[in-house]
Amino acid sequence: MRPTDLHMVVPAGGSGTRLWPLSRAANPKFLHALTGTDRSLLQATFDRLAPLCTPERLLVVTGTAHATSVIRQLPELPERNILVEPFARDSCAAIALAAAVIEERSPGAVMASFAADHLITNIPAFAATVRHAVEGAAAGRLMTIGITPNRPETGYGYLRCSEPAKPATVQTVLEFKEKPTLEVATEYLASGRYLWNASMFLWRTDVFLAELAARRPDVHDPIRTIARAWDTTEQETVLAEAWPTIPKVAVEYAVMEPAAAEGKVATVPGDFGWNDIGDFETLGELLGRDIGGSRVVDVTGLKDAPPVLVVDGDGVIAVPFSSRVIATLGVTDLIVVDTADAVLVCRRDRAQDIKKLTELLRERGHVAHV
Amino acid sequence: MRPTDLHMVVPAGGSGTRLWPLSRAANPKFLHALTGTDRSLLQATFDRLAPLCTPERLLVVTGTAHATSVIRQLPELPERNILVEPFARDSCAAIALAAAVIEERSPGAVMASFAADHLITNIPAFAATVRHAVEGAAAGRLMTIGITPNRPETGYGYLRCSEPAKPATVQTVLEFKEKPTLEVATEYLASGRYLWNASMFLWRTDVFLAELAARRPDVHDPIRTIARAWDTTEQETVLAEAWPTIPKVAVEYAVMEPAAAEGKVATVPGDFGWNDIGDFETLGELLGRDIGGSRVVDVTGLKDAPPVLVVDGDGVIAVPFSSRVIATLGVTDLIVVDTADAVLVCRRDRAQDIKKLTELLRERGHVAHV
Repeated sequence: MRPTDLHMVVPAGGSGTRLWPLSRAANPKFLHALTGTDRSLLQATFDRLAPLCTPERLLVVTGTAHATSVIRQLPELPERNILVEPFARDSCAAIALAAAVIEERSPGAVMASFAADHLITNIPAFAATVRHAVEGAAAGRLMTIGITPNRPETGYGYLRCSEPAKPATVQTVLEFKEKPTLEVATEYLASGRYLWNASMFLWRTDVFLAELAARRPDVHDPIRTIARAWDTTEQETVLAEAWPTIPKVAVEYAVMEPAAAEGKVATVPGDFGWNDIGDFETLGELLGRDIGGSRVVDVTGLKDAPPVLVVDGDGVIAVPFSSRVIATLGVTDLIVVDTADAVLVCRRDRAQDIKKLTELLRERGHVAHV
Repeated sequence: MRPTDLHMVVPAGGSGTRLWPLSRAANPKFLHALTGTDRSLLQATFDRLAPLCTPERLLVVTGTAHATSVIRQLPELPERNILVEPFARDSCAAIALAAAVIEERSPGAVMASFAADHLITNIPAFAATVRHAVEGAAAGRLMTIGITPNRPETGYGYLRCSEPAKPATVQTVLEFKEKPTLEVATEYLASGRYLWNASMFLWRTDVFLAELAARRPDVHDPIRTIARAWDTTEQETVLAEAWPTIPKVAVEYAVMEPAAAEGKVATVPGDFGWNDIGDFETLGELLGRDIGGSRVVDVTGLKDAPPVLVVDGDGVIAVPFSSRVIATLGVTDLIVVDTADAVLVCRRDRAQDIKKLTELLRERGHVAHV
């Protein structure tokens, strides 16, 4: 398949609440330079995908709140390739919209969808895996790239494969599994038959839309109506009418899981240094620099960033995202995040519960801080 | 003695490093509203002292760095009553300058000197104690008001008295004692013969200056030269010449301790809710409001101050001094201070060592943050 035949889709949504107050509803993690360079996660995703197709065939689906930032961060992207949702309707609507718009523009095309806020270190290995998966998609299967697990992670969903995962081999996905307990995750890892679900999907748009039509006409029908009006003068009117009727549902739940049960889903295992930069632990590990047993994550990219002092302590993960000094005295195993309008101090073993804080802020009406 | 015969002196200096980053070299604690009202410690000191004399007889001695803030905070104070030191030369120079200037203006006057950054809750009791001490001063003794201790505090110096301290009674001070160990402080408290040294001094200016001339002519002589030129066109020239020659020495060390050894120092015990607001523990206790076992010190006085969240934790002392949210998760017994350009996270039992951080910042050249 030539690069010009492949369409890429990047759903850019989600606020990354486990990275609060760095990642925000108004400034989500995909817009931040959490890549070790001055490129944002979204830009790094673009850099990784654009060579596999062309900017003309790369679509970003995002919300009204982030459209401006997305447009500014990706000046190479044609305007018509930024699909702006009026408001979020979960992943099935976002991906289906992209599929339907692509189907209108290039019937029967192959599309591949990748999250805007993941980090991949081995780009050639990623590209090779995508090429294998595209073959399966072109042959009519609903493809996913599952990540070869290297630890019994409890923070991700899993794909159960028909046989032990082999690199560069198309395998049937028997089942999608929810986030497991540590015990179950350990069994998964030992079996060699499980991959992490990183929400990387590849399929022919006609194949996917047919599956969607059969299983979820409540999503499919309004999406197709909208897609037909897209790029026309009717776009806004149709969108205003049809979009609010679409139910909120994840694409895994609406399509992939039931399709897997019928043997229609396959995967190519991927092993290319994938990371979802999901929490401050990961951020510290991946992007932090060591200061005497603590880690500083320089997110600002400022050359003369203010100092971080960890005195008589260690195991601190400090994330300065302002021009302030961060000084700690006598503390260990804490996450300290400083942003323009909020400071977080969190025990490291509680990093998974940071969402609690954003919920509490929302409850109390401090929505600007969420 | 009529109020108009008493001169009050407020040395306004010192940066309160144990309250960093709230108290700063450029914005020291006496300028902050650490009083439970919107008045600064300096203003509260003024409010407390002015009724005991008149604004015309109240002098503030401060440095060039804070003169503007002092002038703005005390619009009632006549301009000529703000004595600006070119640079700090420790407490003996500051107090001697005030004494010598007062001696020029009102020979043989009684002066009383009180720090700018202490808090006193029982003002009538304070005023009564001052009146008793003024009598001793008028009679020619070097007076101090010692604070009746209520705990074996290791953070203050002590005065050893000739007999068990009785309120409203002039007693001889036999000795000035440095900050004791807890064991020694416990003995002091049990004996009933020790008072806290709160650097409250009262004396006739001629008596004090004679003592100073005898003991420290290296301080006395340039100070007298400067005081004679004060209020004249020669002030700046003389100051430039004489001030740099003055040695840095504390008034206790230069005058009070040796004078005490000769029986010339006396005290009136004071028990009027004195507090030096020396650290965040004190600040939390005195000015904090309880939020489920933690304390929030509202220093800003903002009506719609941003929220402080302490989730799954307690014993947190939070001092928001900016418009940022402070959120903690799973932490206990921490001090969290948020200011415009620095964030402090400190274990509560390490609060006495915060000075370490300012020293480190200074060493590394971040003087703007000290």
